[in-house]
This record gives sequence, structure tokens and C-alpha cells, in this order.
Amino acid sequence: MKQVIVIRKDLKMSKGKMVAQGSHASLGSYKNTDPKKIEKWENEGYAKVVLKVNTIDDLENLKNKAVSNKIPNFLVVDAGRTELPPSTVTCLGLGPDEDEKIDKLTKDLKLL
Amino acid sequence: MKQVIVIRKDLKMSKGKMVAQGSHASLGSYKNTDPKKIEKWENEGYAKVVLKVNTIDDLENLKNKAVSNKIPNFLVVDAGRTELPPSTVTCLGLGPDEDEKIDKLTKDLKLL
Repeated sequence: MKQVIVIRKDLKMSKGKMVAQGSHASLGSYKNTDPKKIEKWENEGYAKVVLKVNTIDDLENLKNKAVSNKIPNFLVVDAGRTELPPSTVTCLGLGPDEDEKIDKLTKDLKLL
Repeated sequence: MKQVIVIRKDLKMSKGKMVAQGSHASLGSYKNTDPKKIEKWENEGYAKVVLKVNTIDDLENLKNKAVSNKIPNFLVVDAGRTELPPSTVTCLGLGPDEDEKIDKLTKDLKLL
């Protein structure tokens, strides 16, 4: 079991902004996940992996694939109070879910 | 209401590692927080702020102050499977809690 956080690299967010946005994705997807999966993930050491994409299209395609593969997910839309314009899509949380289900969608993405 | 994530700068973690560790801190502290505070924080737009410290002592002092001020918190200890030696303390989640309670502890820290 693992949770994956996928972040847009093209936005050139500061490190702090990336951590805040990534945390939103992680918590949002966690809250969309079945408690049985959560328990299994936590018992296995709650692995988290952080990957990158270069465009909003890549992120939205990934979101659509997560929905059709029934992987819990959460797309983060920033309110735009600090570094970014309002309603900027910044990152996506996937899972926690089984490694092979998530890998099917993310195997071609690189680590942030 | 806000949640604050405080990250050790001296470890020179990669961006991806910082996002993963910061997300652990955020989720861990969230799970240690009273549901009434969570609800209030979420209704206000779940603000997250990411700050930095330069030493493990600074982080542990902050953790102790959070405990004595009854601020929900979570100290992240990395398992050491990737970039860091086992049992490295990497970051601290504080809250969500009232701005003034958290600011009292973190007002001298800089943004990551």
C-alpha cells in the first residue's frame, strides 16, 4: 500500500508552497479513502511517494484515470492568496491504495 | 485557525522528501486534533503554513512547548529507508489550532 502525491513542476512553486499543497493533496485523498485501506496502509508503515508532472493536462488526465480505476484521489485547487493566481490546480493525491493499482497510472512519472 | 508544518533545513532533504515528510507531519497532527477544532479549521479554508528551523534542538524545543501549551502536534521520525539515516527527526506538525496559540510558539521562525 502507498499514497502518491503528484505535483506540477511547471508552476515553479517555492519549497514551502509545495509542502503545503502536497499536504492538502495527502490529507484530501486520505479523507476520500475507505477506512479498511487506511488501516492496511498504516499497518504497513504509511509509505508516501512524491512524483512530478509538467502540465495541468497531465495532472487532470491522471485524475480521470484514478476515477475510472476507482482509486481514491483529491485534486488540489489553490485559493490563490499567496504565490499563485486564484483557482490554480497544483497537485493530486492518489490513495492510499494497493501499489500495483497506483503504479499502473504513475509508472512513467519521475520523482520530484 | 491554521496548521503549521516546521521542517528541519539542516538535513538538506530533496523537495520530494520534504513534501513527503511534511505530509506525514500534517496528517499526524490532524489525527491528534479534537474534531471541533478540525471542523472550525476546515470551515475557515484549512490554512497551512510551512516554516523552517536549523537544528533538531529547535524542533524538539518547539515540540515540548506545543505539549505544555496543549497544542495538538506530531513529530515525524523518518524510518530511514531512502535519503536519511534511520530514526532521523525531520519535521513537526502543529495544530490545526487558533492562530494566536500557534503564533506564540512560531513567531520568530521564517517561511521555508
